[in-house]
Amino acid sequence: MAGNSIGKNLVLTTFGESHGKAIGGVLDGFPPNVKVDLSYIQSEINRRNPGRYPFSTPRKEDDQLEILSGVFDNISTGAPIAFVVYNQDQRPEDYDQLKELYRPSHADFTYEARYGIRDPRGGGRASARTTLSVVAAGAMAKLLLASFQISIYGFVTSIGPYSLPPDFTLADPALIGLSPLACPHEGTTQKMLDHLHKLKKEGDTAGGIIHCIINGVPAGVGDPLFDKLQADLARVMLSINAVKGFEYGSGFRAAEMKGSEHNDEFFLEDNRIKTKTNNSGGIQGGISNGMDIYFNVAFKPVSTLGMEQQTTNKAGDLITYKAEGRHDVCVVPRAVPIVEAMAALVIADQLNKLD
Amino acid sequence: MAGNSIGKNLVLTTFGESHGKAIGGVLDGFPPNVKVDLSYIQSEINRRNPGRYPFSTPRKEDDQLEILSGVFDNISTGAPIAFVVYNQDQRPEDYDQLKELYRPSHADFTYEARYGIRDPRGGGRASARTTLSVVAAGAMAKLLLASFQISIYGFVTSIGPYSLPPDFTLADPALIGLSPLACPHEGTTQKMLDHLHKLKKEGDTAGGIIHCIINGVPAGVGDPLFDKLQADLARVMLSINAVKGFEYGSGFRAAEMKGSEHNDEFFLEDNRIKTKTNNSGGIQGGISNGMDIYFNVAFKPVSTLGMEQQTTNKAGDLITYKAEGRHDVCVVPRAVPIVEAMAALVIADQLNKLD
Amino acid sequence: MAGNSIGKNLVLTTFGESHGKAIGGVLDGFPPNVKVDLSYIQSEINRRNPGRYPFSTPRKEDDQLEILSGVFDNISTGAPIAFVVYNQDQRPEDYDQLKELYRPSHADFTYEARYGIRDPRGGGRASARTTLSVVAAGAMAKLLLASFQISIYGFVTSIGPYSLPPDFTLADPALIGLSPLACPHEGTTQKMLDHLHKLKKEGDTAGGIIHCIINGVPAGVGDPLFDKLQADLARVMLSINAVKGFEYGSGFRAAEMKGSEHNDEFFLEDNRIKTKTNNSGGIQGGISNGMDIYFNVAFKPVSTLGMEQQTTNKAGDLITYKAEGRHDVCVVPRAVPIVEAMAALVIADQLNKLD
Amino acid sequence: MAGNSIGKNLVLTTFGESHGKAIGGVLDGFPPNVKVDLSYIQSEINRRNPGRYPFSTPRKEDDQLEILSGVFDNISTGAPIAFVVYNQDQRPEDYDQLKELYRPSHADFTYEARYGIRDPRGGGRASARTTLSVVAAGAMAKLLLASFQISIYGFVTSIGPYSLPPDFTLADPALIGLSPLACPHEGTTQKMLDHLHKLKKEGDTAGGIIHCIINGVPAGVGDPLFDKLQADLARVMLSINAVKGFEYGSGFRAAEMKGSEHNDEFFLEDNRIKTKTNNSGGIQGGISNGMDIYFNVAFKPVSTLGMEQQTTNKAGDLITYKAEGRHDVCVVPRAVPIVEAMAALVIADQLNKLD
Repeated sequence: MAGNSIGKNLVLTTFGESHGKAIGGVLDGFPPNVKVDLSYIQSEINRRNPGRYPFSTPRKEDDQLEILSGVFDNISTGAPIAFVVYNQDQRPEDYDQLKELYRPSHADFTYEARYGIRDPRGGGRASARTTLSVVAAGAMAKLLLASFQISIYGFVTSIGPYSLPPDFTLADPALIGLSPLACPHEGTTQKMLDHLHKLKKEGDTAGGIIHCIINGVPAGVGDPLFDKLQADLARVMLSINAVKGFEYGSGFRAAEMKGSEHNDEFFLEDNRIKTKTNNSGGIQGGISNGMDIYFNVAFKPVSTLGMEQQTTNKAGDLITYKAEGRHDVCVVPRAVPIVEAMAALVIADQLNKLD
Repeated sequence: MAGNSIGKNLVLTTFGESHGKAIGGVLDGFPPNVKVDLSYIQSEINRRNPGRYPFSTPRKEDDQLEILSGVFDNISTGAPIAFVVYNQDQRPEDYDQLKELYRPSHADFTYEARYGIRDPRGGGRASARTTLSVVAAGAMAKLLLASFQISIYGFVTSIGPYSLPPDFTLADPALIGLSPLACPHEGTTQKMLDHLHKLKKEGDTAGGIIHCIINGVPAGVGDPLFDKLQADLARVMLSINAVKGFEYGSGFRAAEMKGSEHNDEFFLEDNRIKTKTNNSGGIQGGISNGMDIYFNVAFKPVSTLGMEQQTTNKAGDLITYKAEGRHDVCVVPRAVPIVEAMAALVIADQLNKLD
Repeated sequence: MAGNSIGKNLVLTTFGESHGKAIGGVLDGFPPNVKVDLSYIQSEINRRNPGRYPFSTPRKEDDQLEILSGVFDNISTGAPIAFVVYNQDQRPEDYDQLKELYRPSHADFTYEARYGIRDPRGGGRASARTTLSVVAAGAMAKLLLASFQISIYGFVTSIGPYSLPPDFTLADPALIGLSPLACPHEGTTQKMLDHLHKLKKEGDTAGGIIHCIINGVPAGVGDPLFDKLQADLARVMLSINAVKGFEYGSGFRAAEMKGSEHNDEFFLEDNRIKTKTNNSGGIQGGISNGMDIYFNVAFKPVSTLGMEQQTTNKAGDLITYKAEGRHDVCVVPRAVPIVEAMAALVIADQLNKLD
Repeated sequence: MAGNSIGKNLVLTTFGESHGKAIGGVLDGFPPNVKVDLSYIQSEINRRNPGRYPFSTPRKEDDQLEILSGVFDNISTGAPIAFVVYNQDQRPEDYDQLKELYRPSHADFTYEARYGIRDPRGGGRASARTTLSVVAAGAMAKLLLASFQISIYGFVTSIGPYSLPPDFTLADPALIGLSPLACPHEGTTQKMLDHLHKLKKEGDTAGGIIHCIINGVPAGVGDPLFDKLQADLARVMLSINAVKGFEYGSGFRAAEMKGSEHNDEFFLEDNRIKTKTNNSGGIQGGISNGMDIYFNVAFKPVSTLGMEQQTTNKAGDLITYKAEGRHDVCVVPRAVPIVEAMAALVIADQLNKLD
């Protein structure tokens, strides 16, 4: 399979470039007889809209989703669901200066190496705008998961050097929405905002970490050896633009722990086998154990800076480059719905008995 | 596809349980006319043998690889290469006590939830012994990559709380082999050994981190959006037993950095485009840029302890469980060839023009 | 993978229902730097348009193709090529009478059995209108194959009981276009036309056979055991609506022959290994041998009749059903571009070194 | 995926060459908790053994199946089932004369064109001996299907010019076993035997046709558009050695019929929707309708002749070639279990809710 599809039973195939005609996808294997709530899907798409976040690019697109197939009278038919968002902001001329240039830490050079050609319009296929397809399809997956009482929510735990307090636990998912940075802690949000203000003035950018929780997955989901739940999650998370790392459950911290500290002892409660602790992150041997599945995803800082950088072009000339216009200082809050959507697609794909 | 295969062009399908008849695999898509050096493959298999490492299980298997197909006169023919290692240590009776028990942080409970049945013999399919298939196939992939001047080497950077010095850089890969723990730094190795001695006495275990470097991959390898090089690497690493996290290039540290610190500026050297720094870890936009690809993989401590733990069984009875016999105190050094093999399979799969 | 994709390296994913919003697809894995001639693709789409053939449904759609991605300045970029044709003829109300009915030899009953729901609008996903996606993508594949000097052409060899003379050989592919039925023999065409006139009056319909030749495939294309060239061809041909059989080379006739009659002896000519006869149909052991690849595809008569038939509905009531409006008497001539397109997709997928 | 696997949910990966060490496969996705009756599987393997049929090669292998994994206490565990038959008849030296030669209508030339190398031992991977893997895995699939009351049986309808009477219908499947040629009609069997005697004396060979019936598939199995049941069946049948054609239901005969003759009218009987006739061959729109699924598969005559033929080698020299030893005069009866096995694998793969 070429690289623009994910999933085995529920397969998403994506298409579209940042400044091409449209962004979209085809979701095949979606079960029939599911109510496809368009306004919910549109609301998920709006969650990644830059207009909602401070320190985001002012590109304001009214990303209007259109479903082309697979749904009849708002009910899925089992046929592939194609969807499309037409780009309103096609301005190829803006990008003429970039045709020759290799922007630092962008994909200009590697796409040219891979394809022998490059779409210079806003990064083309390498743009994070392509995640729109994932968010739309992920919203459909969430609708499906909701019927299994499975819910997914992500939030920002750190931006640059500022993180949630070490002992933080999320009392209520509703707190996430109160923060303009999707960080469910007021004090930390304020520190992050101050930091981003400062970076913006300097023309600099920040990365961060997103924590995601999947609640309600029954025990027994996952397909060893190579489609272990954590393997599928890792794959899709690392395919998100700017992601540099993934860990689930105890994660990298596990490396420092003793087995006696790390092991999750089983016990019976409410007629269900549970674990006392959850260092396993809800997954053992690649299969869900019924506890919360949770993981962290690390994002590098945005590569487009408002300051001068040295770089080169195809000919190898030394060039001083400074991005024009305004750009995101930090994309991490906007990436929360992307992480959730990816997780939803993985879980929906792995649930064996969807219909 | 069911879950026991990886790869698109070079497809490995694995089989076998810890205490079943045999462990093996089929490697399909391996190019014809490649010299298949059996003694090299056997030497790679021997690298994961417990007998080579201190603090390892005393299960001493003489894992003898047999190739069943796809090779004629030591040359690959393009037909699928099947290989098998017969288990010499089939002792189902040892595991009778485990039939009902859910060992803490093992896959007993989840396999039962997934399959409604469980092979109690040494963890069955969930055992790390299944990685033998990966190491054998990975050795073949390495032979192939060597013909493209691509080399891969991993080493242990931390065990428990003990890590290589922060400013450590590997002067010479040969140093790795000098350490009984595959840690190329004498002082750190000593601290790790002391730590493991102590844990052994307590019946406890340790995790750790492996760093892996892939040298020589030309620019242009990787298949966005979803088969980005880092996505494929993350998937296979997270499918290794006991792995809890993956990061490449700057990894989780990137979340704290500013864009101006993180960006890798391009320049021309020796007629090749290079980057001054390599926070990108050799991958940009999911495609190799010709610099070293490097990543970290975090392992949790071994779950089988030499001390009493509380757990339960299917009926929900509270049980005090203590593993019999001796077991690994730390598997991280033994996992180095597994990490390398997985990386080799990913790179070989992604190289489009193998033949 | 769900069922709406074909191909391994060049993957077509299709979507759309007969009377939904749009028909389209995503072609992933198409090599970069290929000129994508839109007017050629549109002309291929027009070839399956009912308006061009006598005895076809009068549904006259101006099927206008729109490419949404993957092409920049008329050159493919390596990104997935999404394309769409908006349906102009969405008249769900026409089909209200069919909501409950199981039309004889249609897919109404089986779709309901499979999905528990059915799109009553013109057959929904089961309509032959879905082949539009294949013809569009096949046209792109043909553009690609043309650069390898590979050409494909099909023609009608029989309709109902009327067939080309047994000793017929095609002197010139241009003759195909001269026949309104894509049958390159004037006398046979006339008999077919007379037959169809008669059937039309009776409200009856006809099937037929298409012969297809693939010229210029070099020796060495095909992927045994299960992606043998003939296996891939058979699969896609049998996925075309109304197709009941596939044979290549000597086909069913081979069953009656002796080995000494059937074997194709090799000889050298113009520095190339050729076969004296071509009962092998250009394929041996699943791999092309450089000779013409040729095959036959059999179509059943159209199931929608202009006469009364007995059938039933979900409740099991006996119903007398007669289709309203006019319909195709014979679709075989219109299916020629579909057969060619399917063949083109298979060959393009199998050519290993497209770029 | 490389070409040696079939199936999406139930995936068979095969390996082995005619005169290599072993033939075998891995069946992944087989549901857990199914009784795996080894003696039944062995009996199916024995059905394709040449020793059972007149006019077959005298190569007498005692093909002993060994299961290496995935089965514990005769019950499937959900882990991949690997199986192997060791070749007892490895005589590479016999084939030295063939190293340079291109045998007419064999795969010598095309394998060399595809892989640049060729295993001269008995056709290597191109040998029909590789179907042993299919028969073994198909037997497991049949065990699974039996639990759904699905049965499959094939028989020979023609060999060379001799066919079952046109009005033949199978009264009792047990008749098949009474014929040494698996042809359930005594008079026809006798004519076939006479024909084969004559051919044998001449050193010539015959082809034939196999008819296969799948009984008990419930309505609703199949995955349009491209994994239609008939498409999957066609693909696997055309991947069998020597197969030249596939037709289901009315098949090629449909091309001559009128719609009013061909349509299968629905009616209710025993609370089930049925069709009065079954020209649809039990499949409509790619999905089973609950009636018998049936199809024909055409085999060419064996290519290895006991008479002189002209051919060439790599250098292009004209060579007169006559096969040494004795060979099959007709393989069609031996192919019946292969056709059945392939059908079983397709149906088992398509049944969505196996466990």
